Amino acid sequence: MRARAPQPVERLVEAFARLPGIGPKTASRLTYYLLRAPEAESLELAQALEEVRPGTRLCPRCFNITSSGMDLCEVCADEARDNGVVCVVEDPLDALAIERTGQFAGRYHVLHGAISPVEGIGPEDLRIEELARRVAHERISELILATNPTLEGEATVMFLKRRLEGSQLRMTRLARGLPAGGDLEYADVSTLSQALEGRLDL
Amino acid sequence: MRARAPQPVERLVEAFARLPGIGPKTASRLTYYLLRAPEAESLELAQALEEVRPGTRLCPRCFNITSSGMDLCEVCADEARDNGVVCVVEDPLDALAIERTGQFAGRYHVLHGAISPVEGIGPEDLRIEELARRVAHERISELILATNPTLEGEATVMFLKRRLEGSQLRMTRLARGLPAGGDLEYADVSTLSQALEGRLDL
Repeated sequence: MRARAPQPVERLVEAFARLPGIGPKTASRLTYYLLRAPEAESLELAQALEEVRPGTRLCPRCFNITSSGMDLCEVCADEARDNGVVCVVEDPLDALAIERTGQFAGRYHVLHGAISPVEGIGPEDLRIEELARRVAHERISELILATNPTLEGEATVMFLKRRLEGSQLRMTRLARGLPAGGDLEYADVSTLSQALEGRLDL
Repeated sequence: MRARAPQPVERLVEAFARLPGIGPKTASRLTYYLLRAPEAESLELAQALEEVRPGTRLCPRCFNITSSGMDLCEVCADEARDNGVVCVVEDPLDALAIERTGQFAGRYHVLHGAISPVEGIGPEDLRIEELARRVAHERISELILATNPTLEGEATVMFLKRRLEGSQLRMTRLARGLPAGGDLEYADVSTLSQALEGRLDL
């Protein structure tokens, strides 16, 4: 008895709802928005979706995402950047975040995840051997291990430290402490503990 | 100096960010999710987007969205439903919400919006004359004016009441009061006032 949305509408709602963080209500809202908006808006999104995978691949050196027409990614291809410092990140978005600071002129290495026994992600699932090979063959003086400040990120740092032991290089990680604009009162215990531990002389 | 995401990635981020309620961070997150997920997921969403507009049209009777292959929408085509009661809603999603209750066996009329002087939406922008024509030609005994409980919804009800004055039909609207599962303590003043005003004998 109860009528449902027409099939093409339900299909789009379901396709949106498969995306992470998009629940059925948001998926409906997006679909009915597109039903009212100029059709070009749906078609542009459709085209961008169709082209994103054929149009990209992983950089064979740092494993960041790059245009499929390029040999190396934009950072690896930039001769002005410092070969000596490599920033190791979990995901491409982390590299983009560091680029936005404008403070880093070295290269990257994207692991594509972090070690997580709970999720069944081991070192062999990450680009760790590729990093070890870069350490062996490139003249790298410093590795900045910029994993997330989480248990998984820490486990990955510990593994990398052991795996690359004996290499003649400095390994560093990002500072921990209070985030800019944050409120001390609302900082969690572990952030505040790390901010105390890493306190700086004035 | 600062590297950016490859162009096909940026294009998809921008296309997602054009959707309402999707900010640049969510757009990035969705894009990088699709870069890791099986490619079929992007392609299925793309296909659903391409097909949603050609695959749908407005029902010529009630103006709800229907499959383009159908003469009338599912509700209008269902001979078991009551022709005498028409539920007037602002949007197709409102009709779907009422269908989900399983409590309504009449027909619908979708206005496609509500009167809003602020947004420049007048009665002539809505399917109001089409409703007046249905009232004149169909045997309708009751119109349930199920617009949203907002200023715009109220303005639309007031306009419809005046526009259809003199028609031999009952006009009703949905009850106002405390939402199920809500907390009296957190109810806003106007909801609580309406709940008091519409109090029922035990």
